[in-house]
Amino acid sequence: MQRLVATYLIETPGEAAAAAAALAGEQSSGTFVAVPGETEALKARFAARVESVEPLEAVEQPSLPGSRASETGRYQRAIVRVSWSIENFGANLPAIVSTVQGNLYELPHFSGLRLLDLDFPSSFADEFVGPRFGVAGTRRLCGVSDRPLIGTIIKPSVGMSPADTAALVGQLAAAGVDFVKDDELMADPPHSPLAERVERVMRVVNDHFDRTGKRVMVAFNVTDELDRMLAHYDTVVRHGGTCVMVSLNSVGLAGVKKVCDQGAVPVHGHRNGWGMLTRHPALGMDFTAYQKLWRLAGVDQIHVNGLQNKFWEPDDSVVRSIAACREPLLGGLEVLPVVSSGQWGGQAPETYRRTQTTDLLYMAGGGILAHPDGPAAGVAALHEAWEAAAAGLTLQQAIGEYPALRRAAEKFAKLTPAPQEERAPEAALR
Amino acid sequence: MQRLVATYLIETPGEAAAAAAALAGEQSSGTFVAVPGETEALKARFAARVESVEPLEAVEQPSLPGSRASETGRYQRAIVRVSWSIENFGANLPAIVSTVQGNLYELPHFSGLRLLDLDFPSSFADEFVGPRFGVAGTRRLCGVSDRPLIGTIIKPSVGMSPADTAALVGQLAAAGVDFVKDDELMADPPHSPLAERVERVMRVVNDHFDRTGKRVMVAFNVTDELDRMLAHYDTVVRHGGTCVMVSLNSVGLAGVKKVCDQGAVPVHGHRNGWGMLTRHPALGMDFTAYQKLWRLAGVDQIHVNGLQNKFWEPDDSVVRSIAACREPLLGGLEVLPVVSSGQWGGQAPETYRRTQTTDLLYMAGGGILAHPDGPAAGVAALHEAWEAAAAGLTLQQAIGEYPALRRAAEKFAKLTPAPQEERAPEAALR
Repeated sequence: MQRLVATYLIETPGEAAAAAAALAGEQSSGTFVAVPGETEALKARFAARVESVEPLEAVEQPSLPGSRASETGRYQRAIVRVSWSIENFGANLPAIVSTVQGNLYELPHFSGLRLLDLDFPSSFADEFVGPRFGVAGTRRLCGVSDRPLIGTIIKPSVGMSPADTAALVGQLAAAGVDFVKDDELMADPPHSPLAERVERVMRVVNDHFDRTGKRVMVAFNVTDELDRMLAHYDTVVRHGGTCVMVSLNSVGLAGVKKVCDQGAVPVHGHRNGWGMLTRHPALGMDFTAYQKLWRLAGVDQIHVNGLQNKFWEPDDSVVRSIAACREPLLGGLEVLPVVSSGQWGGQAPETYRRTQTTDLLYMAGGGILAHPDGPAAGVAALHEAWEAAAAGLTLQQAIGEYPALRRAAEKFAKLTPAPQEERAPEAALR
Repeated sequence: MQRLVATYLIETPGEAAAAAAALAGEQSSGTFVAVPGETEALKARFAARVESVEPLEAVEQPSLPGSRASETGRYQRAIVRVSWSIENFGANLPAIVSTVQGNLYELPHFSGLRLLDLDFPSSFADEFVGPRFGVAGTRRLCGVSDRPLIGTIIKPSVGMSPADTAALVGQLAAAGVDFVKDDELMADPPHSPLAERVERVMRVVNDHFDRTGKRVMVAFNVTDELDRMLAHYDTVVRHGGTCVMVSLNSVGLAGVKKVCDQGAVPVHGHRNGWGMLTRHPALGMDFTAYQKLWRLAGVDQIHVNGLQNKFWEPDDSVVRSIAACREPLLGGLEVLPVVSSGQWGGQAPETYRRTQTTDLLYMAGGGILAHPDGPAAGVAALHEAWEAAAAGLTLQQAIGEYPALRRAAEKFAKLTPAPQEERAPEAALR
């Protein structure tokens, strides 16, 4: 029987091997005393197995409260790999999450526990369809093959009427964007019912297509209770829409997979709430594991933040996230990384230098709408920035050559943090 | 228009008021520069409003990495209340989660951010049905009115066949339990398909009812992808089952609400994965806020851990969780707290002393199955323990009077941590 392998960073007041054994025990037997019926034969077939324990450094302060006290005064860190027979859960994604995370974060054996990665067995390639569109399908629908897709976000986040939104989408389409998304705060509120917003926006999008042959992809935020979410989805498809957006963490795995399984348009996965799951380095999970779960569920596009962003996340982490998305999963299941947060084009050279890819959906909100010469110049600046980036120019060289980017830089460069120095990959864990 | 209020613990390298303003701004305007269209009128109607900022102490080390550096070398903590007009999201639970949490944990304005509580507007009482069964409905189905429901968990967690499980349920029913649940690791695996498990177990449960008039409630773990979850649900109902269980965090809000909306049987909410969301005191969320979201979704029974548990959580936190569940939400929406983890009855006096309630589902796994005189004695010990607890006896007095509890204590007491001292409520935040 094939096995699923999970890799963790642990920190423990005791021996790393003993903590790893406790982890495996909790997630396959799970009680505080031995119970009748727990035979050796059952254990051999179903018990989680510790595959490896690789000690790291020890620290003097526990990262999380609530662990047992350390007798040595030190807390040992280690990388631990644990495996389960897939006979324990089958191709049941929520049950897999309960198995590899579940009660583990509750164990007092750990003063730190973080899920780093998941390796799914090859048989899962037959069990999960994965993203129906991914990179190639999104590119095809947008009619863009040779550069990042340029996208933007409807701002302000809340308060605009469907008519306001449609007018803005018209302006953005005229400006030349490939992609527009609702803000994650804008779903189906009383002042902008999704059905009316879709109707008005798609009229503009379809008119633009009829006039120009260019179909702008609009990710309508269908995030909602399940039945309403599916109704929203049908509304989008009925009006010729080519994308829906869901807030992954707020909707959850079962709901998101149900949306993906509709299969008619790409699903844009917004990761808002992700910071809660990842910001403490000794708790939660790495994006590498996280994005695999959503790819299995079928998400086509997933947010990865951006370099030199307005949020807390270091550039190294964003670079790792993009690399994780580009790594084939079960031989494919490709997902398009969505780069955003404080982007205006100035980050393009560094983004390309560090990721060596243009298979990105590159989003700028204020960077387009607030460009000093208007949204068309904002879009032009992004095209220029990526042309320069792919040609290997530095930002300074690009600004020297490209006028719209230069104007963008005059306004935005001072608001943007400098690129961060790269750290050795092994330092990233700590 | 009515407003939703969220209460946060924040920690910031700057001024608390400025950080609170940034929080409100991110969650209602949300870009790094002012954009056209963001008028004062729109702001007045839709902007999140900082209702109060109550400074706490300042600390010298940031709790989380990634915040801006502090110019003063200190990181100010505060309790902040922020409100939104419900016109921003309507009665859309996932959109509400994106609003009150969303990108907030990403902001570099914070070296700590934790959602403590949510106050929903009274109009939500008309929008959300909430738990269909709750405390009273669960009691009615179990035929128990005057003491905690006594429950147990099928162990080992994985590996048992449907026939094994049915045999064990028969033994547990004969032992006198009110309630049995699947383990969270046991959903619909190849070696124990849920449909077959339900059929075999319910035959035993229905036979027991026919013979004794006592209907044991069995929470079948229907956790799965959506369509399969609903099919599992129907299977349970068709065989006369009276409860289903879902892993809340693994399934997610949209899927769980869809299950609750079926309305035929109570939904047992397992919170596995919760440690990831709460274990660091300056990140994630308090159980007070968490359980409100699940009650709005309609969950009837929710896990709260137990006093003197085998996990990391202090007794104070468990006591607060039980109190939160007992607090009416929107005038009702009652939910039954599920007490578990290392319980064998010895914790009953302290649990009653600190919570003053018997409206509990009191679960013991090993505590029943591994009782030295067998499961019937295990159940008897739990009845004895709660009779003693409700009469105000200490554990020592109870052990002196009750024989099954005494035998349990001989085996289990040494495995159980001592009750923890109470701390002042305000210390709980720190």
